[in-house]
Amino acid sequence: MSLYSFKKSEAMFQRAAKVIPCGIGGHVSPAVTVPGSFPYYATHGKGCRYWDLDGNEFLDFMCAYGPVVLGYDHPRVNEAAAKQRALGSVFNHPTPLAVELAEKLVSIVPIADWASFARNGSDVTYYALQVARQYTQKTKIIMARGAYHGTHPWSIHSMAGIIPSDYEHILQFTWNNADELRDLCKKHEGDIAGVILTPYHHPAFGDQVLPAPGFYDEVMRLRDQYDFVLISDDVRAGWRLNMGGSCEHFGFKPDLICYCKAIANGYVLSAIVGNDRVKQAASSVFFTGSFFQAAVEMAAALATIDELEKTNAIAHMWKMGELLQNGLRERAEKHGLQVSVTGPPTIPNMTFKNETNFLRMQRFSGEAAKRGVFFHPHHNWFISAAHQPADIEQALGVADECFAIVRQEFGS
Amino acid sequence: MSLYSFKKSEAMFQRAAKVIPCGIGGHVSPAVTVPGSFPYYATHGKGCRYWDLDGNEFLDFMCAYGPVVLGYDHPRVNEAAAKQRALGSVFNHPTPLAVELAEKLVSIVPIADWASFARNGSDVTYYALQVARQYTQKTKIIMARGAYHGTHPWSIHSMAGIIPSDYEHILQFTWNNADELRDLCKKHEGDIAGVILTPYHHPAFGDQVLPAPGFYDEVMRLRDQYDFVLISDDVRAGWRLNMGGSCEHFGFKPDLICYCKAIANGYVLSAIVGNDRVKQAASSVFFTGSFFQAAVEMAAALATIDELEKTNAIAHMWKMGELLQNGLRERAEKHGLQVSVTGPPTIPNMTFKNETNFLRMQRFSGEAAKRGVFFHPHHNWFISAAHQPADIEQALGVADECFAIVRQEFGS
Repeated sequence: MSLYSFKKSEAMFQRAAKVIPCGIGGHVSPAVTVPGSFPYYATHGKGCRYWDLDGNEFLDFMCAYGPVVLGYDHPRVNEAAAKQRALGSVFNHPTPLAVELAEKLVSIVPIADWASFARNGSDVTYYALQVARQYTQKTKIIMARGAYHGTHPWSIHSMAGIIPSDYEHILQFTWNNADELRDLCKKHEGDIAGVILTPYHHPAFGDQVLPAPGFYDEVMRLRDQYDFVLISDDVRAGWRLNMGGSCEHFGFKPDLICYCKAIANGYVLSAIVGNDRVKQAASSVFFTGSFFQAAVEMAAALATIDELEKTNAIAHMWKMGELLQNGLRERAEKHGLQVSVTGPPTIPNMTFKNETNFLRMQRFSGEAAKRGVFFHPHHNWFISAAHQPADIEQALGVADECFAIVRQEFGS
Repeated sequence: MSLYSFKKSEAMFQRAAKVIPCGIGGHVSPAVTVPGSFPYYATHGKGCRYWDLDGNEFLDFMCAYGPVVLGYDHPRVNEAAAKQRALGSVFNHPTPLAVELAEKLVSIVPIADWASFARNGSDVTYYALQVARQYTQKTKIIMARGAYHGTHPWSIHSMAGIIPSDYEHILQFTWNNADELRDLCKKHEGDIAGVILTPYHHPAFGDQVLPAPGFYDEVMRLRDQYDFVLISDDVRAGWRLNMGGSCEHFGFKPDLICYCKAIANGYVLSAIVGNDRVKQAASSVFFTGSFFQAAVEMAAALATIDELEKTNAIAHMWKMGELLQNGLRERAEKHGLQVSVTGPPTIPNMTFKNETNFLRMQRFSGEAAKRGVFFHPHHNWFISAAHQPADIEQALGVADECFAIVRQEFGS
């Protein structure tokens, strides 16, 4: 096959740069993949594949950075959404779907006594901080260093447009280091409002790290001792580890869980669930937006959850992810390359060991993209329920070619 | 006719209270209208009417708090959105629609050299602050006391879950008081990053106040003198005063304009446009979200803008709003009642003069709701392009009955 080119993407990007800051900004910026080796614009999708502006087809392992958990253009989800669309979406009131979806989340998530809805992951993580501060009447929030909780200034330090007061009450500890967390709690005793954690550590540009044995037991013990609010930021991992929340997979009990990405298979929705301990505080915080009650996306979420449950989708994705992870390890070894394949099988990631400049990984993923397989060079990947064994085989075939290129070019 | 009852709404609310904090939270909470006299849940809508869970029909003057500018279930907007839905919405990249929509906004908004997209009004107002801080490398933001710029803690002081550092660099002045604004600029000279203003003052629970003659001239003079970034928060008024931004209506030139609500006739989208002066700063701030590039709502926005332009919708809404405003004044006077009808005709509001407890207004609007006309008691109203003279006549007929009740019950 001839390798893909991205001429139409590049021409559109030139056009975009005139009227959009950066041309394309944020996490989908070409700068975060490998400029010149990846597409910049998508046109349509189906199942685990999508097409770019140049007409190139991609076997996708990003799922739109997570949301597309059932696959692109899922008929059942689209049908449920279209049915609600014909009735309407935003009104002067919620629709009964808000109640149905809250009841559904409460029924499937063991820690949940209630749910609320918003539109971005950042909406619900920021709200969670406010609920924690309101419940405890304290100010400090502890997060893991390098964790991503959205783009709001409280969680992103030292970036453009952010001032020190935005994060002056945010404390950081090293993921999995319970001693450091305990020391922070002790040092700030009487002023800890909450601890916010992704269920496992998935920093950009790095290996994924699962919770160490006993880590969450200690976190929960500290919660009991210091009476802070424990927040699980499941925006990225939600619906891919356990339908009861990723905390069920890892065995801990947060007070709040934040959902977004996969909650409605790509429809614009986020949610937060919580326990009764913090419900009154959650009621007190003013939390709203023009579209927070929009019904179409709630219909999509109900259909998505139902489909995930009925098809036992997580188990399927787990198997597909294992096939991919094991296959990548085997093929890398065959070429004499050292790779680190990390994370749960449904949210895999790969880096080349002993490299800090990402050059091997950029070469590998760029060559894969030019052969129609989307592996992100710097961010964890996502499996969807639409991936089948033949797709994994195709991906591994391409990976094999790309490992060969890396070996040839970089040695080991 | 028999008056409406809301039994099914009330039963659903009881069910909701078990699984959602407050049952219904935020700006659509029953507590912000008149509990017992208004519906709590909507089921479907068409044009300027919607139906509640009890089957009651409402002639609507809220338009879902603004978004539904062309009317509920608009066929052309829905068709454009459905066409894109069949292709897909979120991907690993934007679609070309992001470029088309940015180009469209740049072409119709005189101050705009560029556009970016998000999902909530709060997303873009908060981003605007960051852009202002990045551009100026200064910290203070000035806003009008009582103005609403979303739910993020920077703009809402002294509410639950908010701590003083959230707003310690926000300064406030009295709307229309250019002297006070000038004094603030002088006092904090060298540290003013931005001034954020709604194009006219539309506080909840109060009369709307248009800019005083010369106010914006002075604001622009101060911007030149102190080199701050001037932000127009057009979330509420956008698409209802001028297709070039409400600044064009009032004659001022901001650096940034924030849009949300009506931008896509109820589809979940917000946008910010800016001039070249702040484009580099806008590029530097990390601004993204899982759904910021979702394409379906951009298709809806393009169709909405085109329809508004082609039908000269603002002129039509203006006429309908004037009919309503004048009719309300006449009928109130007929009953010997003193009302204050304020704001642009497309975003009218009414209060009873000489009352501070809202009891007359709650009685008036509650009785209107029970007769199928939705006038909000405490928040400005919205006209849509779907309103026709016969609708205004129906509304005024109901208003007449309700004025009579108020007169009988409260005297004058």
